[in-house]
Parts: sequence; C-alpha cells; structure tokens
Amino acid sequence: MSATSSGLLRLFRRCPPVDLAADLAPYRHFIVADRHVGWVDPDFARVLAEFPAVFYLTDRAVRLHDRLSDVEARSAAVAEVLATLRERGHVPGWRGELYPVNRRFGEAPLLLMERAATPLFGLQTYGINVNGLVRDGDTWRVWIARRAMAKHVDPGMLDLIVGGGVPHGISLAENLLKECAEEACIGPTLAERARPVSMTTMIINAAEGLRIGVQFNYDLALPADFQPRNDDGEVSEFQLWSLPQLEESLRGADDFMFDAALAKLDLLMRFGIVGPDDPDYLGLIAQLRRPAPFVRT
Amino acid sequence: MSATSSGLLRLFRRCPPVDLAADLAPYRHFIVADRHVGWVDPDFARVLAEFPAVFYLTDRAVRLHDRLSDVEARSAAVAEVLATLRERGHVPGWRGELYPVNRRFGEAPLLLMERAATPLFGLQTYGINVNGLVRDGDTWRVWIARRAMAKHVDPGMLDLIVGGGVPHGISLAENLLKECAEEACIGPTLAERARPVSMTTMIINAAEGLRIGVQFNYDLALPADFQPRNDDGEVSEFQLWSLPQLEESLRGADDFMFDAALAKLDLLMRFGIVGPDDPDYLGLIAQLRRPAPFVRT
Repeated sequence: MSATSSGLLRLFRRCPPVDLAADLAPYRHFIVADRHVGWVDPDFARVLAEFPAVFYLTDRAVRLHDRLSDVEARSAAVAEVLATLRERGHVPGWRGELYPVNRRFGEAPLLLMERAATPLFGLQTYGINVNGLVRDGDTWRVWIARRAMAKHVDPGMLDLIVGGGVPHGISLAENLLKECAEEACIGPTLAERARPVSMTTMIINAAEGLRIGVQFNYDLALPADFQPRNDDGEVSEFQLWSLPQLEESLRGADDFMFDAALAKLDLLMRFGIVGPDDPDYLGLIAQLRRPAPFVRT
Repeated sequence: MSATSSGLLRLFRRCPPVDLAADLAPYRHFIVADRHVGWVDPDFARVLAEFPAVFYLTDRAVRLHDRLSDVEARSAAVAEVLATLRERGHVPGWRGELYPVNRRFGEAPLLLMERAATPLFGLQTYGINVNGLVRDGDTWRVWIARRAMAKHVDPGMLDLIVGGGVPHGISLAENLLKECAEEACIGPTLAERARPVSMTTMIINAAEGLRIGVQFNYDLALPADFQPRNDDGEVSEFQLWSLPQLEESLRGADDFMFDAALAKLDLLMRFGIVGPDDPDYLGLIAQLRRPAPFVRT
C-alpha cells in the first residue's frame, strides 16, 4: 500500500487494516455449531477457558459447547458468562443490546450476544450509514454532523448525519427510520426516500478488540429547506458541505470518525469526484471492501 | 455460492468465476522483470518453451528472459514470437492493438503485447463501460444496445451503448471520448459529462483463455431528446429501458453480454434497485469486485 502525503490511502493508516495472514495468526477461530464466526485473541481465550461448561478450547479454536444446541440455549449460556466477565471489567461499554451471530447477513442467528462483547469474539457486525444530500444545480451538497464534546467516543469529530449498528430483531429499513428520527429528526416520510447505494467494510484492531464491520450505505436526498436537528445532545452542529470541500477534508485531515470517513470516500467515488485519475483509485476500492476473514465451511 | 432460480447470482454461473486455488493450480506464473503479471496454462507454456531466447520455464513459472531489459526490447521479442504463433493459429482474433503489461493501472508498462494474446498469458486488462442515462422524473432510464447479427462475438446480444478495452498510449478520458463517438455518435461536449462511478472486475475462463479484466464504469446523463446512433453497423438497435425492466431482464434471461451484465448489475446496486433486501446482496458485491490473482512481490 503506497500513500503520498495528500493521497487518500492515508485514511487507512489511521486505523491500519488487519493483515489477515500476519495479524490474525495468533488468534483462535471462534466456532459455533461447527461454523467459523469469529476470532478470539490468546488472552481472551485463556479467560474463556475458565468456563468449560460453555466454551472449550482446541488447538486452534474456541468452540461453543455442542450441548448448547439452539439459539436460546447458546445465548443464555453466553450471557451468563458475559455477566460475570462484565463484573470483572472484561466487557467495557456494555450496551444492553443483542447482536446476531451468523455467517451470512439475514440468516437465522446461531447465537445472540451483547453488542459490547462482539469485538472480543471478533464477530462480524452490521451497520447502516445515511448520506444526507441536497441538490445544488448539477451537483450535490452533503450534510455533515459534528459530534458533541461530551461524547465518550471521538468527541468533536465529524460524522455522518445518521448511522448506527443493526441489532437483532429489527430490519435494515426499520433501523434506518429509527436512526433517522433519533439522530437528525428526519421523519419517516423523508427517511423512506433513502436508497441503498453501496457497501463498505472495516476490519481493524481497535482498542475494544477486533472490529469486523459491514456497513450498508444509503443516500437520502433532502429538500433544500430541510434543517437536520439533534435533540439528544449528541451532535453539536450540522454543516452543509460541497463535495470538493469534503474531498479536501478527507485528503488533508483526520477530522472524520473512521467509519464515517470510509462512507464519505465511497460517496466521492460514486459521484465521480475521486476517479481513476487518482493513482490510488483501485487500491482505495480494495481497502473499502475487504472480504470478511472467515473460513466458510 | 447459492443461487435461487430468480436470484441474480445466476448471472455469474454463465461464465463461472475462476476459483483461484483450484482452477489456477496447474497454471504457471508469467514473470516479467521479476514481477508476476500473468498466468500461462500448461499447453501454452509448452509452446512458449520452443522460444528459449525469449521465454524460459522454471518449475512454476514462465519467465521473460532477463537479457530483455527494457520495454522496447521485451515488446519486440514477444511480438516476433507472437507473429510466428499467429501463423500457426495460436492467436485467433488478432487486433493489431497493443495492451500495456504492468502490475498497477497507470504504471509505466513492463511490456506491450498484442491484445489478442493477453488471455493466453492471463494478463490483467482494462476497459471502460459507459451507462447512457436519461432522467425520468425522480428516476432514470437507461439506453441499451443490441449487437448486430453480423458481429463475430455475441451477435444479437444486449450491450452497453459505449464500452471498450483501453490500449496502450491513450488515457481513460481520451478513450472514453473516442468510444462515445465511434459507438453511439455521442460528441465530445456530451461525452465530457461522463462521471466515473465504480469499478467491476471479471476473472473468467473464456474460449480465448483466461480473462482478468478491470472495468472502469461511467455514468453519462444524456438529454431526453438525444438519440444514440451507430454508423459502423455493429449495433442493430438502441432501446431506452426503465430500471425495473433492466432488473427483470438480468434476473430472468441471459440476453446481455457477460461484461455488460456486470456493469448493469452494478448500476442497479448503485441506484438502490437491488439492495440489502436481496438475500444475495453481499455475495453479488463480492462477485462484482473480485481481487486480481497476482502475487505482489
């Protein structure tokens, strides 16, 4: 991966992508019902080995016990272990939100697990991003949010106007309506105009563990007189940017949250602002859509 | 790869993607200046071994002789071999057009090679696709071309209105203007409105050999009163389709040329017609953008 000083590949150096061969070598496969669904680092594997009724370790894997034969039994047993680990400080940022564990988006889950624990197990998670766009003659402007200084994660950084993880039990479409309402006061009539436009992935080693994310990206054309509004204090301001302004920011600064930067780079590439004239074009596309590192058995 | 009868993954069964591990195992790496730039099948490797001043075989590779130390010397030596092989019928469909051989798009070429020979050496080639779009209220219609019955390849099949390979010595932008003029009588003022929007790849075993293609896709918004026209007899008719009509065709029939079908599927995904509600969504994205199978040394 080459990167000139103003090259967009620099975006990916902030959170260096996990090298699947080198970085994951010491990890164990997390296996549920004979399927490879995650990656567990050696330290956390040793912790899980303390719960042999639920997890057992083999040479290269952490396996959920086969006597746990359905999603209810597995989820209850894992929840009990995680409650203990939470008390011991192993699961920071507890959300009280269940994420589905499966091998394919939309498939019936093999297990449901507390969101905050998913990076510890190196699970694949799903999220949505919404680009709020306003037509401006032949081109578009894009709404950008600045996160409140009081936010725990990435205070003051730039973000999408709407985005969020997709927990178990809610469809993408329902989740989109919910997040639009909560994060930017975009009502359902407007939010239903959002169109799925692309997918980006993120495979990074974050402070909280291994994050393997699939982001479903949507474009939402908003009326010129619409003003996004945030009522829960999580956003300090909204700004309407031109696409060249967005490009300049991504090339020169690290003002955006990492996953928001990926969604905005994808937008610039779909709108012809960053094209094959950029010497890193094919490299950028490869970085934006790295395949998930699971052995499909 | 699962595929229901009306599922879009069926598109990829017409030209089954090359399985990089299984299908390429018997192939030899084609090495130029110590770089892996292609794949040669065992039969063609035996033919190349007859020209030891130019090619030499090692256990797992066909190497261009190191005494050929620059692009001119390499291109001349390979051209001489190919002229002989052409007489012996090994290089059907001779074009008289040189393609660059390199490891990265836009990089200075290591070698220039006759286009018709590139599948024999399993080289990566580059092409452009242009989607001709006409605004229709809140949505778009798309121009489709039907190839003339007299065409040698895929007569009568549906195609993009503009597309073509990118030979050496012409930029993507110049090539786009040239192809727009030749294939659909789209003049430069209109053609310059084309915007790069995405990239799709194709790695297939075709009759002519291994095709490893990168396609740069452009959207071109055309005025409602513009009528594409073809003067060289290669197109029998142009039709203006709705996006649902395009989706129905891709789901139900094999009327499109393979690479045109990929570009049109990509269009439907960027325009929100095929989204994550489709159970094959993530699989389709993976198939549309498979990474090139080269060892980057």
